[in-house]
Amino acid sequence: MEPLDIETVDSAELSDPAFIEGLPGVGHVGKLTAEHILDQYDGTLVRRLYSHDLPPQVDVGDDGVAELTHLEFHAVETEGRDLLVLTGDHQAQTNEGHYRLASAVLDVADEFGCEELYALGGVPTGELIEEYAVLGAATQSSIVEALEDEGVEFREDEPAGGIVGVSGLLLGLGARRDVEAACLMGETSGYLVDPKSARAVLEVLEGMLGMDVDYASLEERADEMEEVIGKIQEMEQQQQANVPSDDDLRYIG
Amino acid sequence: MEPLDIETVDSAELSDPAFIEGLPGVGHVGKLTAEHILDQYDGTLVRRLYSHDLPPQVDVGDDGVAELTHLEFHAVETEGRDLLVLTGDHQAQTNEGHYRLASAVLDVADEFGCEELYALGGVPTGELIEEYAVLGAATQSSIVEALEDEGVEFREDEPAGGIVGVSGLLLGLGARRDVEAACLMGETSGYLVDPKSARAVLEVLEGMLGMDVDYASLEERADEMEEVIGKIQEMEQQQQANVPSDDDLRYIG
Amino acid sequence: MEPLDIETVDSAELSDPAFIEGLPGVGHVGKLTAEHILDQYDGTLVRRLYSHDLPPQVDVGDDGVAELTHLEFHAVETEGRDLLVLTGDHQAQTNEGHYRLASAVLDVADEFGCEELYALGGVPTGELIEEYAVLGAATQSSIVEALEDEGVEFREDEPAGGIVGVSGLLLGLGARRDVEAACLMGETSGYLVDPKSARAVLEVLEGMLGMDVDYASLEERADEMEEVIGKIQEMEQQQQANVPSDDDLRYIG
Amino acid sequence: MEPLDIETVDSAELSDPAFIEGLPGVGHVGKLTAEHILDQYDGTLVRRLYSHDLPPQVDVGDDGVAELTHLEFHAVETEGRDLLVLTGDHQAQTNEGHYRLASAVLDVADEFGCEELYALGGVPTGELIEEYAVLGAATQSSIVEALEDEGVEFREDEPAGGIVGVSGLLLGLGARRDVEAACLMGETSGYLVDPKSARAVLEVLEGMLGMDVDYASLEERADEMEEVIGKIQEMEQQQQANVPSDDDLRYIG
Repeated sequence: MEPLDIETVDSAELSDPAFIEGLPGVGHVGKLTAEHILDQYDGTLVRRLYSHDLPPQVDVGDDGVAELTHLEFHAVETEGRDLLVLTGDHQAQTNEGHYRLASAVLDVADEFGCEELYALGGVPTGELIEEYAVLGAATQSSIVEALEDEGVEFREDEPAGGIVGVSGLLLGLGARRDVEAACLMGETSGYLVDPKSARAVLEVLEGMLGMDVDYASLEERADEMEEVIGKIQEMEQQQQANVPSDDDLRYIG
Repeated sequence: MEPLDIETVDSAELSDPAFIEGLPGVGHVGKLTAEHILDQYDGTLVRRLYSHDLPPQVDVGDDGVAELTHLEFHAVETEGRDLLVLTGDHQAQTNEGHYRLASAVLDVADEFGCEELYALGGVPTGELIEEYAVLGAATQSSIVEALEDEGVEFREDEPAGGIVGVSGLLLGLGARRDVEAACLMGETSGYLVDPKSARAVLEVLEGMLGMDVDYASLEERADEMEEVIGKIQEMEQQQQANVPSDDDLRYIG
Repeated sequence: MEPLDIETVDSAELSDPAFIEGLPGVGHVGKLTAEHILDQYDGTLVRRLYSHDLPPQVDVGDDGVAELTHLEFHAVETEGRDLLVLTGDHQAQTNEGHYRLASAVLDVADEFGCEELYALGGVPTGELIEEYAVLGAATQSSIVEALEDEGVEFREDEPAGGIVGVSGLLLGLGARRDVEAACLMGETSGYLVDPKSARAVLEVLEGMLGMDVDYASLEERADEMEEVIGKIQEMEQQQQANVPSDDDLRYIG
Repeated sequence: MEPLDIETVDSAELSDPAFIEGLPGVGHVGKLTAEHILDQYDGTLVRRLYSHDLPPQVDVGDDGVAELTHLEFHAVETEGRDLLVLTGDHQAQTNEGHYRLASAVLDVADEFGCEELYALGGVPTGELIEEYAVLGAATQSSIVEALEDEGVEFREDEPAGGIVGVSGLLLGLGARRDVEAACLMGETSGYLVDPKSARAVLEVLEGMLGMDVDYASLEERADEMEEVIGKIQEMEQQQQANVPSDDDLRYIG
């Protein structure tokens, strides 16, 4: 296997599609949002991305069949814009890996003719939230204005630390390729999978992309996701307790 | 030395061999299982794998002679299937290294004509165990069924975190090469080398491979392995206490 | 994007320019010093350096427009020497990255004909300071003498740990290229952005480069920088609390 | 600069030289031993090794002149065997780096015709020591016997963790190149630079190499080294307290 390998699963004819990224992150807002879209509309899995920058693991389905962890691109048709949606269970595992994966993702978006990109994520408030605001960042001020019309907030010095990881790089590397890219970050207390934050982000996408989202099953999906994530973390902690890290072996004289 | 170097030690004629991986991991179940097989049957060391992805160290024998740490492939003939068995004292030390090593291991398995692969490991329960179950994962549902007939359990959402490391990648990369691969994970409390868990795994292999395993010396071997591992960890902790990690030097302005 | 990419923004005719590096570090002394110079003199942004060795993030401006994090080179004319000034928000993220970035920085300095280099930083005293001394290191004893005439102190065994990071490498790699390089390290208690330490460094540069620095706005700039850095750290801690590090996934059997 | 660069400083005619490695490690036994040899005999600096695998730093001399950190090879003539001695202030900073550096070191040893190699280090006992034993490991049993005649001890399962780092790899990679290599590890409580342990190692070398070592200044040298190392660690801790590690930036969604 090459260090990075994009597998063609199916083809799709999309007309002027927008690209949506929903990988794991703070409050899993982006992941929940993207998976909710895939669930409502019948999408087509068109590409799988395998990479040495993803964790060295397989994911095991309920049928006991394992497959190498990867990112997935689905082609989706909605009442509004066509979409190419990126989902997955992991981000890259190193700084350089984030750059390599984001570049490869932009190549796929380009292959499908996506000239508009939405990177979805969450921004932690560290406190409980009454009104779920969506913070934004974009590659051009024209996009900033369009998002403000949809109620997205742009605050001085927020997010203060900039935007780190794949969402940030899709904007940063996208801008250098003249892609019109925006990052939508739902405020979240950040400690659980947050359906209220995802709903706030989805409402912005409805306006931007002319979609008509059904929110009925959103809470339920969040609960399921929460359960799986909880099990994963528990398992990881157990495994940690039993496996020597290579730090025990490094740099001995 | 190349970053990855496979040394030919000997040749062997194996007829339709199955590949068995038993590298260190949770409860050292896979390692103990594989070494028990090597001990019962007279195997032939056919390949050594050296890699920059293994720890930078030599292993010192009781005769004081040191050799560069490596993985070993033994050709084994049993009452049942012929085997190619992978053992060693270490896994890769980085995420990318896991991918590189697993790919190289599959190349060797392919060279010897192995079309069936068993990755052995343990899964921690975090509690004491009465009945030692063996959990499974596989690359095809046909293998799942065959393993279920041997009593292997396939549980929803387990292992929840997927399977990480070389065992996981042998399935994941194997599937992409059309190798029929299964991971057998013996339940273990996970705090010691666990012969009861290894026995449960061996009993599955007996059924799948037509072997007739002698369990007499299994407990004893586990005790020996436990002793060595204990010394290694003690030594490592002492060395750690005396060596500055490079974290003390990184990222200073 | 290449792993390292230097973008030409503008051109500038500099006469025998000196190179000044002011990247983040202890007490942000170097960064504050360099940015103060850029603020006083009308500089021209001539080059941007993008690299996989910088953090995978975008920085978001107050207008909501995001750009990929990068280092900036400004051409500056003063009453005295012309300058090429390097600033940015980050250093490299790995040891090898420090080498790659420092080499690329020296290439740019060379392109603009800089034969004299000043790497600016801070040295922590761990205690409050009455008299802000500036410690020095240089690539030749002739530079040591010139700096001593400007009050720079050279103390036995200080800095004891040597100089780590980009400032150190600009000297070390510069020496191997026959660049005349000096490191000026303002003593700082090291816990906040330290304008008094930056002033001590600026006073040395005034003497070395024939500049006439206006210190009026220095304190104010330090307070602003402090505020931003505080927000960044707070945000990072929040994000950390909600994101699994890949250490939870590494080296599982 | 290349990722690894060996600079020719001077030439030397050595007759059947033995190679001695004394880089930092447990109790700095190897480093102290090698530097004591360089101090007693007038050696010639013949090669400098620069590498991206060494820390990104310069070392500053008492004259304020900084040079890029590197490893040094000295040609040394003694009453007995000629020697090529490797010293430095650092080992590699990563697992792969240990492999790269050890291979480059063996290339230099080979260039000078060294067919016999001694890797020097310490082994921590974790307790105070009455009799300073020297533990050994070697690439052939013939060397084991020769070392036993000099009082070197070879104990079952010691060092239990194998030998990690450059000393281990010089044996491991040396063996694959048919170099006759031995590792001499002086027992040390391991918490300070240990002259008694270094003396025990030197006494073995006297016998093996026909040298006549003067121990008068050994204690003194150990005290000096201790002082410098103490300052380095103190400085590093101060710097750590003031510099964000990149861990604060990794893997954010």
